[in-house]
Amino acid sequence: MKNIILTGDRPTGRLHLGHYVGSLRRRVELQNSGKFDEIYIMIADSQALTDNADNPEKVRRNILEVALDYMSVGLDPEKTTMFIQSQIPALFEFTAYYMNLVTVSRLQRNPTIKEEIKQRGFETSIPVGFLNYPVSQAADITAFDATCVPVGEDQMPLIEQTKEIVHSFNRIYGEVLVDPKIMLAENEVCQRLPGIDGKAKMSKSIGNCIYLADTSEEVRKKVMSMYTDPNHLKVSDPGTVEGNTVFTYLDCFCKDEYFEKYLPEYKNLDELKDHYRRGGLGDVKIKKFLFNVLEEVLTPIRIKRAELEKNISYVMKVLEDGCVKANLKANATLTRAKDAMKINYFENQDSITEYFK
Amino acid sequence: MKNIILTGDRPTGRLHLGHYVGSLRRRVELQNSGKFDEIYIMIADSQALTDNADNPEKVRRNILEVALDYMSVGLDPEKTTMFIQSQIPALFEFTAYYMNLVTVSRLQRNPTIKEEIKQRGFETSIPVGFLNYPVSQAADITAFDATCVPVGEDQMPLIEQTKEIVHSFNRIYGEVLVDPKIMLAENEVCQRLPGIDGKAKMSKSIGNCIYLADTSEEVRKKVMSMYTDPNHLKVSDPGTVEGNTVFTYLDCFCKDEYFEKYLPEYKNLDELKDHYRRGGLGDVKIKKFLFNVLEEVLTPIRIKRAELEKNISYVMKVLEDGCVKANLKANATLTRAKDAMKINYFENQDSITEYFK
Repeated sequence: MKNIILTGDRPTGRLHLGHYVGSLRRRVELQNSGKFDEIYIMIADSQALTDNADNPEKVRRNILEVALDYMSVGLDPEKTTMFIQSQIPALFEFTAYYMNLVTVSRLQRNPTIKEEIKQRGFETSIPVGFLNYPVSQAADITAFDATCVPVGEDQMPLIEQTKEIVHSFNRIYGEVLVDPKIMLAENEVCQRLPGIDGKAKMSKSIGNCIYLADTSEEVRKKVMSMYTDPNHLKVSDPGTVEGNTVFTYLDCFCKDEYFEKYLPEYKNLDELKDHYRRGGLGDVKIKKFLFNVLEEVLTPIRIKRAELEKNISYVMKVLEDGCVKANLKANATLTRAKDAMKINYFENQDSITEYFK
Repeated sequence: MKNIILTGDRPTGRLHLGHYVGSLRRRVELQNSGKFDEIYIMIADSQALTDNADNPEKVRRNILEVALDYMSVGLDPEKTTMFIQSQIPALFEFTAYYMNLVTVSRLQRNPTIKEEIKQRGFETSIPVGFLNYPVSQAADITAFDATCVPVGEDQMPLIEQTKEIVHSFNRIYGEVLVDPKIMLAENEVCQRLPGIDGKAKMSKSIGNCIYLADTSEEVRKKVMSMYTDPNHLKVSDPGTVEGNTVFTYLDCFCKDEYFEKYLPEYKNLDELKDHYRRGGLGDVKIKKFLFNVLEEVLTPIRIKRAELEKNISYVMKVLEDGCVKANLKANATLTRAKDAMKINYFENQDSITEYFK
């Protein structure tokens, strides 16, 4: 069996450092590992519309933002098929049939959905499409025969839902769908990069994100305003490293080589942390260092993005080609599934004429 | 604006006399009235699967039964496009987008759905697809730009749901969808033909139906076993006409000309009823008359059906051609809707590239 990855993002905003350490960086590693036969990364515009039906422009304006972010961080159209969900009609058809295999109460019990309903303040006025998005996600995963779904731990209940649908479908119609595996990240620390205000998660609505597309100056300002240790008032005070956002970021991004280049008085992050804990190390100094570290990560992304922004028609071509490839794949799977369901009536006329012989 | 009809049936069994007087007879009249520019009649197999996912064969084996019933009663492929729902991919896509415009609680409040959930004993384990079928029905109706939906009164809440979706969609994306009208039958008496046991409705599971495909002998037996007036024990007893199934059927099917042919001692149904009320008229006599009346209706249907059954490949061709026509229509509407939603990104690149100019 082939090793196939399917993953993606809702285009409801530009991608930020939280996405970078939580998923993007890893996708590039997986892409370049040579371990996968096919990799599909989806801009999930249809899914984004499930809770943005009233504001379709928000989704529309972020499709190319996300595509630019993908290609800027190193996702390579030669190795990874990047496509837009709404352009793959087979996904809607899979979703419709899977909806018959899942009960309403099962969806309402899904912990991820419960949490998201709370976050969005939907309460009883949940759009059907939103409640149903785990089913549409099962369509995405299975349409591409994905064996691996690299996502965060909070997505586990969604993958469980997909697996249940696969098992039901295969039990009723025969072994047609591939049972996917969730692929959790190894580095738990970076799974949830806090916002620059130290809040649990980067969130566009709170405004605590560093975007991959931010200018150098924007990044500098954001880093200099970062939450550190509120009790570290004077340089001479001992400071706390745990829960100190600057150090959390350094844990995710720092490499030993950056010390030689930007802060040669320390050999590595442990030495820096020790000094901070002892006292005598000011926040401005560690913030300037973090800024340089982030610039090491962000500068090549920013350069690549600037190039791509000058050539939007190329980016459109990549997406269009990606959709063509994605349609070929998803349609082939759909034909296989419909053959098993015996609802390709005209290709397989016996499926309904056999009763009249 | 064109006058367009969309209607259909779930293929979960052969059609019976209840369908005939409740909808089929009228569809043929509407078809032949010359008042409609386009008529679409759909074999709703996808909808049937929403509560038969475990038993797909039940749906499959009834597709041609329903098609045969349609063509036997006089639906004419030259005038009416007969097609199979699952073969029209655009319907799934419409459904997915409409699901974002309807809340879960709105569907749960739908009186038709509530009643059907009760009938099926679903309680809390309602398949999502089943709860959602009013949304998929809105897709069916709007995809064909239907202006008229000829259905029974019990379907009114479903058409209301479609209208709400049309209004929401048009408000958000522009005036794209046609607002349909429900078209109630004029003859209320025949809307709900009771079963031969006098029960409220013909139902396959109760086994109280006369099918359009029944043989003459089967019809005779069923008519002779019909529920009449339980207090009409002797021929000489006065009898009751109201709630007497034989007379209910005669009300729906009898024409004056049949008396001359089969029961010349009466001029019309009123005279027959009077005699029954007075006493002196036996049940066997009225049942034999009803049998003859039903045979007048059923014989031409039966002859046509026998012809068609010998030529199943022709019936398949009619359905296949119908699906081609239905796809042309539904795809055109979908393109119009997606243009309005601005999600035809590659045909209209500006919809997403405009933010990068």
